[in-house]
Amino acid sequence: MRAGPSQDEIRRQNLGALLRHVHVHGATTRAELTTTLGLNRSTIGALTADLAGAGLVSETTPKQTRRAGRPSLVVQPESVRVYAYAYSIEVDRLRAARIGLGGAVLDRRELDRPRGLLAAEAAPLLAGAAREMQQAVPAGSICVGTGVAVCQMVRRDDGRTWLAPATGWIDEPIGAALDAELGYDQPVTVGNVADVAAFAEHARGVAAGCDNVIYLYGDVGVGAGIIAGGRRLTGHGGYGGEVGHMKVLREGELCECGSRGCWETMIGEQGLFRAASRPDARGRDALLALFDAAGRGDARAQTAVRQAGDWLGFGVANLVNIFNPEMVIFGGTIRDLYLASAAQVRSRLNSNALSACLEHVRLRTPKLGQDAALIGAAELAFERLLADPLDAG
Amino acid sequence: MRAGPSQDEIRRQNLGALLRHVHVHGATTRAELTTTLGLNRSTIGALTADLAGAGLVSETTPKQTRRAGRPSLVVQPESVRVYAYAYSIEVDRLRAARIGLGGAVLDRRELDRPRGLLAAEAAPLLAGAAREMQQAVPAGSICVGTGVAVCQMVRRDDGRTWLAPATGWIDEPIGAALDAELGYDQPVTVGNVADVAAFAEHARGVAAGCDNVIYLYGDVGVGAGIIAGGRRLTGHGGYGGEVGHMKVLREGELCECGSRGCWETMIGEQGLFRAASRPDARGRDALLALFDAAGRGDARAQTAVRQAGDWLGFGVANLVNIFNPEMVIFGGTIRDLYLASAAQVRSRLNSNALSACLEHVRLRTPKLGQDAALIGAAELAFERLLADPLDAG
Repeated sequence: MRAGPSQDEIRRQNLGALLRHVHVHGATTRAELTTTLGLNRSTIGALTADLAGAGLVSETTPKQTRRAGRPSLVVQPESVRVYAYAYSIEVDRLRAARIGLGGAVLDRRELDRPRGLLAAEAAPLLAGAAREMQQAVPAGSICVGTGVAVCQMVRRDDGRTWLAPATGWIDEPIGAALDAELGYDQPVTVGNVADVAAFAEHARGVAAGCDNVIYLYGDVGVGAGIIAGGRRLTGHGGYGGEVGHMKVLREGELCECGSRGCWETMIGEQGLFRAASRPDARGRDALLALFDAAGRGDARAQTAVRQAGDWLGFGVANLVNIFNPEMVIFGGTIRDLYLASAAQVRSRLNSNALSACLEHVRLRTPKLGQDAALIGAAELAFERLLADPLDAG
Repeated sequence: MRAGPSQDEIRRQNLGALLRHVHVHGATTRAELTTTLGLNRSTIGALTADLAGAGLVSETTPKQTRRAGRPSLVVQPESVRVYAYAYSIEVDRLRAARIGLGGAVLDRRELDRPRGLLAAEAAPLLAGAAREMQQAVPAGSICVGTGVAVCQMVRRDDGRTWLAPATGWIDEPIGAALDAELGYDQPVTVGNVADVAAFAEHARGVAAGCDNVIYLYGDVGVGAGIIAGGRRLTGHGGYGGEVGHMKVLREGELCECGSRGCWETMIGEQGLFRAASRPDARGRDALLALFDAAGRGDARAQTAVRQAGDWLGFGVANLVNIFNPEMVIFGGTIRDLYLASAAQVRSRLNSNALSACLEHVRLRTPKLGQDAALIGAAELAFERLLADPLDAG
């Protein structure tokens, strides 16, 4: 129903498209930009000059060229001067990083996080890490914003976290708390860790170029970041992707959400520890020890891992039938489970998924590894820059 | 990554936006169009003149107005002269209609369909109905294309139907068969009936204005048309939305897809007839008789309907947690099941869905009723017109 854009909007779109290209693909010649963006040379020249004037890109003459004639100038992102702050609030730790335009991690800090720590208590810790990093920022740098990945449901409108059994928060204003501590000009954008990691893997990771992707992320619970038709699936309130609360058993184990038989009770850490008769174990290290024991031949650990792998395949088959994705990515602790039980996952997927949906789906582990949450959080901030480069720059 | 549009693209977008507005909302004054589309008066005048020149809209002076000054001209779609053919291939019947720009059914035919009839056999029957209707088309009319709704999975690239247990087809070129029979200039666009009905309800039905919608459609099987972020979810190959093959029981009844425990084995007609000890019953009339018996107090029928309603709520809760939709629509035979067991659906949904996702979701029946498939099929054809009105018109 939207009418075509105005001249101003077109200029913003063109500036954003050029900046996004070098942000994702790195240094690019003007000639390549002309071809890729489908704009003429003089437009590319004018857009580059505007972005360079704002300090967002720079141009260099390539040192050598095999072709005759004047070489095409190379446009590159100002990847050290232009940066975003990225935070990741996880079950067991807090991470902060400064990430440059182009996606490189310029600086980072990591802190332990006692389970149940409140947002109001986490915000000063993260702000402290940010202040430390700020001291090393070169003069004349441009901070374009702050993104936060949180390990539970995030409301789209106001970035409050909601019903977060893993972190112990219920309806906490994490965005506002950080905003108050940091006192930056730019707003803080908050996203669920699975959404944010999916965004990063889609932008510059294993799912680059894929339009239909499911990124499963596990810690205590299990969630998914979903890309459908090239766009993030957020749902009406921002809670889309809570696949850990897909019921796979009518009368199953009690879940932290208050219901029974949720998928995450079978493939999350508690399910694995329960099945392995290690009821007091918790956390990622204990989980890795369990996978290690299974690898060394511990029968009980092997049974637990095989069972969980079978349930992993069961749920993935459902999601494959529902979404018809071209790629499923296993992240967080689900990556470890997948690697320990790939045969069970594959076998269950083959028997449960529709052959038409199974035909093209690839199963993958993340390319960006544990940095996906931080890089994705920074992408949330960069998105604002890319939508209107000269306003935010 | 896309650069801004060219002047030609902007003009196409503006023409499409204006035509879409009157297609969906009917006759609209130039003044309202100016406000709604955010374009100036002279642009609206020029766009309207172009569309009128192509025979797609006409303008009239309103007969009376309460306001002083010259009244604003009213732009209306040429809803009798401009039309699309729409076909719906269902389990038990074949339907054909001629649908005008603006969404009104101008003419229609209905034929019985023996179960298992092949595409090659159905195409001549539908083409015969089309030829009959064609005789009544006024001179000077414009046919903009043909859309087909099919009651099973449809591959996006070539419109072939694939693995269609309900119709008995496997990888059949229904689009090509109709194309050959009809011999029109325009291509035939084929879609799954749930996708197509969802599209219709989203464009001009109960879900108008809703960006996140799940439309459940039942016949022998159960599928969903899903709107996420305002756009149809198609999946990688066009098979997205096969929610009937979400497994809800690990060891359940054998499904036509070859797997066990699919949701549709519990809420589809076979599940209901099995639970009601009516193993030989089949078809929509028998299903309505079962709901009727339950309403009249038949204990076995009541138990079957209550069980199926509970399973309906179980699956809907999963979809609500995965998609966080603002509306779930119950269509086809699932409408009848929902109306007969709304208490069970609600109760199971309340206990299984996350409260954050449950908060805003509305449960609805279709506004367009059984016409949704035909209207949606026509919308597939109109989409092509709206994307580039003067090329297709």
